[in-house]
Parts: sequence; structure tokens; C-alpha cells
Amino acid sequence: MKPSQAGPDPLGELFGLLACIRLAAFEERAGDAAHAGSYEDRVVLGGLAAGAFQQFERLRDRLVELGRDPGEAIAPYRGPLAEYHRRTRPADSAEALAKVYVADGVLADFYMDSAGRVDEAARELVRDSLADSGHAELLTARIRAAAEADSRLAARLGLWTRRLIGEVLSQVHAVVAARPVLAELAGPEGVEAMFGQVIDRHAARMREIDIAE
Amino acid sequence: MKPSQAGPDPLGELFGLLACIRLAAFEERAGDAAHAGSYEDRVVLGGLAAGAFQQFERLRDRLVELGRDPGEAIAPYRGPLAEYHRRTRPADSAEALAKVYVADGVLADFYMDSAGRVDEAARELVRDSLADSGHAELLTARIRAAAEADSRLAARLGLWTRRLIGEVLSQVHAVVAARPVLAELAGPEGVEAMFGQVIDRHAARMREIDIAE
Repeated sequence: MKPSQAGPDPLGELFGLLACIRLAAFEERAGDAAHAGSYEDRVVLGGLAAGAFQQFERLRDRLVELGRDPGEAIAPYRGPLAEYHRRTRPADSAEALAKVYVADGVLADFYMDSAGRVDEAARELVRDSLADSGHAELLTARIRAAAEADSRLAARLGLWTRRLIGEVLSQVHAVVAARPVLAELAGPEGVEAMFGQVIDRHAARMREIDIAE
Repeated sequence: MKPSQAGPDPLGELFGLLACIRLAAFEERAGDAAHAGSYEDRVVLGGLAAGAFQQFERLRDRLVELGRDPGEAIAPYRGPLAEYHRRTRPADSAEALAKVYVADGVLADFYMDSAGRVDEAARELVRDSLADSGHAELLTARIRAAAEADSRLAARLGLWTRRLIGEVLSQVHAVVAARPVLAELAGPEGVEAMFGQVIDRHAARMREIDIAE
């Protein structure tokens, strides 16, 4: 069986995965907000959580339009997402913000590339649902300021972001292996070829926040 | 010192309290969503959480317009709110939904009355920030259906909502005692006079969900 016959609907599969990612991100960020030490971190993380929920709602509506049951579409991804978040629980708000920055950047790279292979409208929805709606700038500023003010924190964030990129790539690998229909979205060069580009762009984002990778 | 001299700005005080209530509601509901057993409850509670965060943002913006520091304005209320949520942690999604229904109903009654005494624009913001944006209907339908399908759950929710109304009223009492400027908003008959009306309206809402109070 060729990959193209593994599932009838790669787009529904991709939206199910993205919806699950955003719903899990909402819950994790809200939990991080509740544990934040300062009012400001509490509100920044809360806003990132509320934004993730709105993105989830758009993806859910699109799944319904495609005739998919959203609960069923996200079900296969709940376990891997829960495992990813369990393995990358931030120790404090600085790590929580760095996690959003790393993970949203990498995921946007992966899925913009994938959805562009499906159709233009999908690409737009994926851009809306993963693009940061301005939060990358906010995060860049906050993480840079925190790292500049505290060299030990900067060193810790350097280790943390290296661990995160490893966990993210290993989860992407596992998810694509378990759901071969997703591999169709990687284009003719395959998933592995995307990894190199994704890692390069991640390294560029790390330089933006002055954390060497 | 008369109550009217206890603080210069009852409206800023009220918005600080409401902003704190909505921010805490966001965090609690998101936590309840993360623990929900079904996809549907997870999404309903998540939507209630995201809605509470948006209401928080409007109140925060209004505090800034009034020249108040939002972090300082909400600070006095964090302890009592955390205590209320600690004492009323739902055992499952049915209790979580009933908690939203009871608490949002009572708080809307209290604060609509209070804000109406301050000014009309404030009343409108309070209506926006506490009114349910349609969720009372959704909650009524879900709680009724759950209670009709399971008489033991209905009995448990009856006990639960009685406990909740007691906790809500006792927290309102404690907060007003600690911040006398808020008592100005209760009108000439005082806070105690509001309690009778609030309890009557709560009982009517309980009849809506077929849970006798």
C-alpha cells in the first residue's frame, strides 16, 4: 500500500492534529499561568492560552465543515501530546514562555510547509491557527530581557531550549510514524528532509533571543 | 469615618474585584477542562475559561483607563478568591459546570445592582463582563440533561449547589467587610438587604435546572 492510499483525507488528519495541539496548548499554558509568580507572567501566559483556545475553535469548525467529528479527529493525538507536555513541564514562567516560543516556531514551520502542499485555503487557516498573532515579538522581548538580566537564567534557558527541540522533533517523528497519511504532506523529499530546514530556522530563532544553540 | 470616605474610587475597586474574579475563573475553568473526562466537557469548560479571560482583558483595559494599575487593583482579592476556589473544587465536570452556573448567576446579580448605582457605562461593562454571553442556556440544558439521566447525580448536584451558594455568600460578606469602599455600592439599604434578593434569584435559577434548593 502506497502512502497516498493510507488514508483518504490528509487535510482532515492535519487539522485533527493541529486542533489537538492547540487544545493541549490551551490547557498547559493556562496551568502555567495559574502557577506564575508575577501578575504580568500570569496575564501573558493566560493570553497565550486564550489565543490557543480560539485557534482550536477555528480548526474544530473547519473539521466540522469537512464532515469530520472533531472529538474523533483529535483522539489519536491526545496521548502523544500529553506525553510531550508531561516530559516538558516548565519549572517557572521563563521556561514556560521559552517553551511557547520554541514549540510554536517549530510547529508553524512544519505545518506551513505541509499545508501548502494541500491547498491555499488550508495554508491560510494553518497560518492563522499557528501564526503567533504578534506573540513572537512579545516573547522575544521578554525572554531576551530576562536572559540579559540574569546570566544563570540564560544558561538554564539554553539547556531548556535544546531539550525542547529534541522532544518536539522526536514527537513529530513518532506521530508521523503512527499516522502514515501525514507523511504525504511532507512532499516528495519526505519528512526527514523537512527536519534539516526546521532545525536551521529554530537556530535562527534562538539567535533572536540571544540564546546560542 | 463614613463609608463614603473609606476610599476615593469605588468603581476602580469594583473593577479590580471583577478583574480578579474573571482571571481566577479563567484559571479554575481551564484546570477543570484539563481534567474533564469527555471531549465535549473539555471543550465547553475550555470555552468558558477563554471567555472569562476575554472579560478579564476588558476589565483590565478599563482599569488602565481609570488610571489604576491592574496588578495592584486585583491584588487584595487574590487571597479570598483562591480560598473560595480551594474550598469549592469540583469533583467532576458536572460539578464544574454547576459551579459556573451558580457563581456566575449570583455574581451577575450582585454586581449589576452595584454598578447600576455608580454609572450607566459601568453597568454596561459589568453586564458585558459578567453576563454569560449565551452560556447560561447551554449550561441549563447540559445540567438538566445530566440530572434527568441520573437521579443520584441530581441529588449530589443539589447538595453541591447548596454548598456553593453558602460559600459564595460568605466570601462576598468577607470581601465587603475587608474593603468597606465596596459597601458604598450596595445602596442605602446596605449589603445585607441585597442578600435576600440574590438568594431569591438563585433559587429561581435552581428551579431552571430542576434542582430544588
